[in-house]
Amino acid sequence: MRFQVHTRQREAFVDITAQVAEAVSASGVTDGLAVVSCPHTTAGVTVNEAADPAVAADIIAALGRLVPRSGPWRHAEGNADAHVKASLMGCSVTVPVEGGALALGTWQGVFLCEFDGPRQRSLTVTLTPR
Amino acid sequence: MRFQVHTRQREAFVDITAQVAEAVSASGVTDGLAVVSCPHTTAGVTVNEAADPAVAADIIAALGRLVPRSGPWRHAEGNADAHVKASLMGCSVTVPVEGGALALGTWQGVFLCEFDGPRQRSLTVTLTPR
Amino acid sequence: MRFQVHTRQREAFVDITAQVAEAVSASGVTDGLAVVSCPHTTAGVTVNEAADPAVAADIIAALGRLVPRSGPWRHAEGNADAHVKASLMGCSVTVPVEGGALALGTWQGVFLCEFDGPRQRSLTVTLTPR
Repeated sequence: MRFQVHTRQREAFVDITAQVAEAVSASGVTDGLAVVSCPHTTAGVTVNEAADPAVAADIIAALGRLVPRSGPWRHAEGNADAHVKASLMGCSVTVPVEGGALALGTWQGVFLCEFDGPRQRSLTVTLTPR
Repeated sequence: MRFQVHTRQREAFVDITAQVAEAVSASGVTDGLAVVSCPHTTAGVTVNEAADPAVAADIIAALGRLVPRSGPWRHAEGNADAHVKASLMGCSVTVPVEGGALALGTWQGVFLCEFDGPRQRSLTVTLTPR
Repeated sequence: MRFQVHTRQREAFVDITAQVAEAVSASGVTDGLAVVSCPHTTAGVTVNEAADPAVAADIIAALGRLVPRSGPWRHAEGNADAHVKASLMGCSVTVPVEGGALALGTWQGVFLCEFDGPRQRSLTVTLTPR
């Protein structure tokens, strides 16, 4: 199952938990794994706290201190920092499915990690039964 | 399959390879994947060297230099660094299962990465056949 | 399915997309997941841009600035930085399989991330059906 996300800033974490949960429901898989994949190289996906939006803002800010946009870089498109951050977060997350639902922890949500927006991003959810 | 781990310090890597291997045996899956999931947002999981405990200590220390607890942070609970480190390590690891056993490399072990302990943490192991 | 890669420098990203795609074809799985696993603790795997080799060079350089080889380290083998970088990249990547092929994005490739070469490295590809 595939869905689109429009990001509105250069860097933003977008909570996509509802879309992923919907894909799980639509799949009919009751127990197994849900893999959320990001087919882009300047965006990633991660699981972290969804209750306080300050957490996502802090992760973005911390990554900005670790990997400054100014470089130095060899890749000449002005987005090398975004490529590095995408690999630090990863291009997919794997979440257990139990009883037909995503088995996330109380505070967990799934986030698209945009590092070179604003853009339209595509996400894929793949289900495998247990 | 689910198991609990009690961590004893604010930051610690706990070798959970034996518990994961036991879950694989109990599942009866002979070939496929074992996914170890951490449903918390200030702890993660990783695979790294289990022979010399200095390796885990070095990873914790390196993450501490990269993401100082002092911030600056917007999240006001005093554990924003732990959230960032959890996303850097990741909330799950996927290990092949071959011949009914975890197919880890010679030096590899699976670790719970505690960044905001001491706490009781819960881990899930999900098996999917090949 | 298993294949070998010879790395030629201490640090290098080796594009292994063709070998992974071949493993997918050989498996006969048409829809599901392909997991590429690295059984080593001073190398990892990641997905990032395969078109411009400057991107991989930039990731290696950025990780070198974040995790200097000089430490300080407790692990006494001179490769503690490589262990940290392996956990930052991760020991496996999971890619959807659709219509019998790897469902990577246009710019994505799968890379072995060597941080303590030159060495012979072994990679495993595990397929699970949807």
